[in-house]
Amino acid sequence: MDPKIKDILKDYEKIWALNQANSLLNWDLETYMPKNGVEARGLAIANISLLRQTFFLELSKKVSSVKIDKLDETEAGIVRTLNRTIHYYTSIPPEIIEKFETLTSKATVVWREAKSKSDFSLFRKYLNDIVEINVIIAEKLGYEDNIYDPLMDLYEEGFTVRDADSVFDRLLSGSREIYNRIIEENIFSTPSRLEKIKYREKDMIQVNKKIIELLEMPPDRFRIDVSSHPFTTEISEDDVRITTRYEGYNFKATLFSTIHESGHAIYQLQIPSKFSRMPIARGVSSGIHESQSRFWENFIGRSKEFVHFIYPVLKYNLPFLKNYTEDRIYRYFNTVRPSLIRVDADEVTYNFHIALRYEIEKKLINSEIDVKEVPELWNDFMEKYIGIRPKNDSEGVLQDIHWSGGSFGYFPTYSLGNIVAGMIWGKHDFTGELDNMDIKAIKLHLYEKVHKYGSIYEPKKLLMKSFGETYNPDYLLAYLKKKFLS
Amino acid sequence: MDPKIKDILKDYEKIWALNQANSLLNWDLETYMPKNGVEARGLAIANISLLRQTFFLELSKKVSSVKIDKLDETEAGIVRTLNRTIHYYTSIPPEIIEKFETLTSKATVVWREAKSKSDFSLFRKYLNDIVEINVIIAEKLGYEDNIYDPLMDLYEEGFTVRDADSVFDRLLSGSREIYNRIIEENIFSTPSRLEKIKYREKDMIQVNKKIIELLEMPPDRFRIDVSSHPFTTEISEDDVRITTRYEGYNFKATLFSTIHESGHAIYQLQIPSKFSRMPIARGVSSGIHESQSRFWENFIGRSKEFVHFIYPVLKYNLPFLKNYTEDRIYRYFNTVRPSLIRVDADEVTYNFHIALRYEIEKKLINSEIDVKEVPELWNDFMEKYIGIRPKNDSEGVLQDIHWSGGSFGYFPTYSLGNIVAGMIWGKHDFTGELDNMDIKAIKLHLYEKVHKYGSIYEPKKLLMKSFGETYNPDYLLAYLKKKFLS
Repeated sequence: MDPKIKDILKDYEKIWALNQANSLLNWDLETYMPKNGVEARGLAIANISLLRQTFFLELSKKVSSVKIDKLDETEAGIVRTLNRTIHYYTSIPPEIIEKFETLTSKATVVWREAKSKSDFSLFRKYLNDIVEINVIIAEKLGYEDNIYDPLMDLYEEGFTVRDADSVFDRLLSGSREIYNRIIEENIFSTPSRLEKIKYREKDMIQVNKKIIELLEMPPDRFRIDVSSHPFTTEISEDDVRITTRYEGYNFKATLFSTIHESGHAIYQLQIPSKFSRMPIARGVSSGIHESQSRFWENFIGRSKEFVHFIYPVLKYNLPFLKNYTEDRIYRYFNTVRPSLIRVDADEVTYNFHIALRYEIEKKLINSEIDVKEVPELWNDFMEKYIGIRPKNDSEGVLQDIHWSGGSFGYFPTYSLGNIVAGMIWGKHDFTGELDNMDIKAIKLHLYEKVHKYGSIYEPKKLLMKSFGETYNPDYLLAYLKKKFLS
Repeated sequence: MDPKIKDILKDYEKIWALNQANSLLNWDLETYMPKNGVEARGLAIANISLLRQTFFLELSKKVSSVKIDKLDETEAGIVRTLNRTIHYYTSIPPEIIEKFETLTSKATVVWREAKSKSDFSLFRKYLNDIVEINVIIAEKLGYEDNIYDPLMDLYEEGFTVRDADSVFDRLLSGSREIYNRIIEENIFSTPSRLEKIKYREKDMIQVNKKIIELLEMPPDRFRIDVSSHPFTTEISEDDVRITTRYEGYNFKATLFSTIHESGHAIYQLQIPSKFSRMPIARGVSSGIHESQSRFWENFIGRSKEFVHFIYPVLKYNLPFLKNYTEDRIYRYFNTVRPSLIRVDADEVTYNFHIALRYEIEKKLINSEIDVKEVPELWNDFMEKYIGIRPKNDSEGVLQDIHWSGGSFGYFPTYSLGNIVAGMIWGKHDFTGELDNMDIKAIKLHLYEKVHKYGSIYEPKKLLMKSFGETYNPDYLLAYLKKKFLS
């Protein structure tokens, strides 16, 4: 290994240790921390983030002195990954970062109140300020083409408005056609009675435990806990954790959140151990990470074969399934119908929700619309694409936490996840793996195509290397058509 | 507040944040971490400890420039507390700290093997090296009178061999007399059948939960979990956690470990919030901390009144207690009899175990004996004071983990805990509080005498201020005599 890189990695160990600390401080905050610990916890996380930032800046001189052309691909990946963070911290002045944090933590509180009162006007001023500070950040980060580009780039390196416009255009029109036909045919669009049926939490805990086993999650390197919003976190290379939640009814919600988060965890767990403690030991982007969770959740988890695979577990633990056939459960898992809420959406309508948010974000950041126009735009879009109109702000524009937290540019990666999962599916025949529910083989395939590279390559390069093309929505559309319309 | 102190406390915030991180990393290591996370966890903790050390050294210039005579007592306490840590890090060269850590982590592994094979000879070389490095550390720290003093001072500031010799001399002869009479009278020395009786873990979890409630531990600032060795940790000022363990029989073990750790936690939870995030927001020494846990465990927890208080909870949850009266349970809680193992010892014989370790440590550090003589010395002492002789090393010299971890000077603080708890008991009439089991009043008393000072004063000064004298074992002896012989 290049001696300069070796030296950089030695220094990086401190950052790696602080990452582990902050991941655990955050995990604990959401799972086991006594309630009153929240203030001290916030302060500890802020201090450690600041230290992390200091150490990144200390690294910048060493990193910039490395001669890129002398490096192998792994080494180049390390430099590229470090430079992305260094670029962020050197471009954005600390006062802006601090202002951003103060603003968004206040805004999150206000958003909660506005949502509970279903009153966008309470939140409007904050959304306006958040857009403004994102514009400042985008300017500081710099861009060639569109001011929204550097914001998306934070989550999906190299993905631009030019890419997104083309992707969402094809995705929207294709999905609309499929969706309309599904509604017409009325096979998948009938709600199941299971949506309302209550379960006992301890029964579903058993089901999830068994699912984790069936997915062959390694018990010595993985655990599952409960939190109010499900998430995956890597504490260290041999310690990856997911959470789920139990709402008490509609059991597929917790089941698919468990499978979804396991998909993220499998990615993390399969990063080669030779990359451990390096900055490339992580998923390459939010979109690629999401492709893994969506692949397991939708392509595997909602397949007929998977239903067959887990049917005995469900029947054994959930007494109310007594008279439900595999086919009825399959249809319950795959209901497609109008829904106002993104997180409840099915595989087909989900991307409408994302396209809507993408359009609004892009226009806000480009100053093409004013914040006060957002609710109306939102509702019109919902009516046009999904066929129902939110009756109030809380089931419309106020439903997601993301904007109050300051995230602009993140939403599109949800659809990129679906699209890339579609590419994985479309480029390989999974019949054999599914027929035998060969989890190991599926994991190996994902390893070969995605996981083994860590974040050596930027996402587009990874996609070209493994699939010969970048974000192409046609595979996803073909999959949806075949699944729901044949 | 003095502006220099204010500035120092601002800098100290980073150390405070790292303390929170390391406490949580350690807590999680013992409770929830997936097994394979251990290597990465160790490396993270080591890195963060090193950062902490760096920040302490960075503080040293500012701290040494403070004019002590201008400070109020709180500020002086802050400087004193910081100086203790700074003195340690400036006196001990990093190579010695590193050598100490490498040696003790290796030694702990070897100790485990030696213990399981009951073969001291396997561990002898390591114990020798550990003594040698402790001698080096003691030399570096400096001392006036005895080379063992600076090692005890690490845990009990200002406590010397001169103090310890006098304390243990009185404690040993007094305890021996009491012990011999108890054995003669044969009232408390009959083993209870309850020692062998198995419980269902979920029943004892309920009992401990209820005990935590009865002790009015604040649910928003406190939690209890399970680990293989019970401990208390302060994650932050509003987040204090204890653990217990369930061995499956002899239910008093887990019960009293819960009460013991709760005593530590009450101390931490009652440190005034005005000290939060300052270096004085902690117990003043290991001995004073132990006085709190022992006070709750023994003086309160093993009293007739407490048995009466919790009797309904025990009867309700533990079906095997059906025919047990309060009095029989009281005697089960207070059995006094020969035992080879320190952690199983009762209130009377416990201090023999400590006096033995103190004598051996003092002699080893003073090069008065050789490591190879230790097992024989150990066994002779046990026979002389407790009346039974270990049949092998694992129930003798190899029973404790402390030496393999490098701790010399720590054991005496266990007895200091008992002695100071005795002083608290002897200096105040608790009849009213006990008759009504007025937990709030007991907590308030401990707050007034101990907790409200944080670590402003060194332990001897605190004891003089609150009790008019320092470590006086007479109160403990009087309490034991009254309890077991009247």
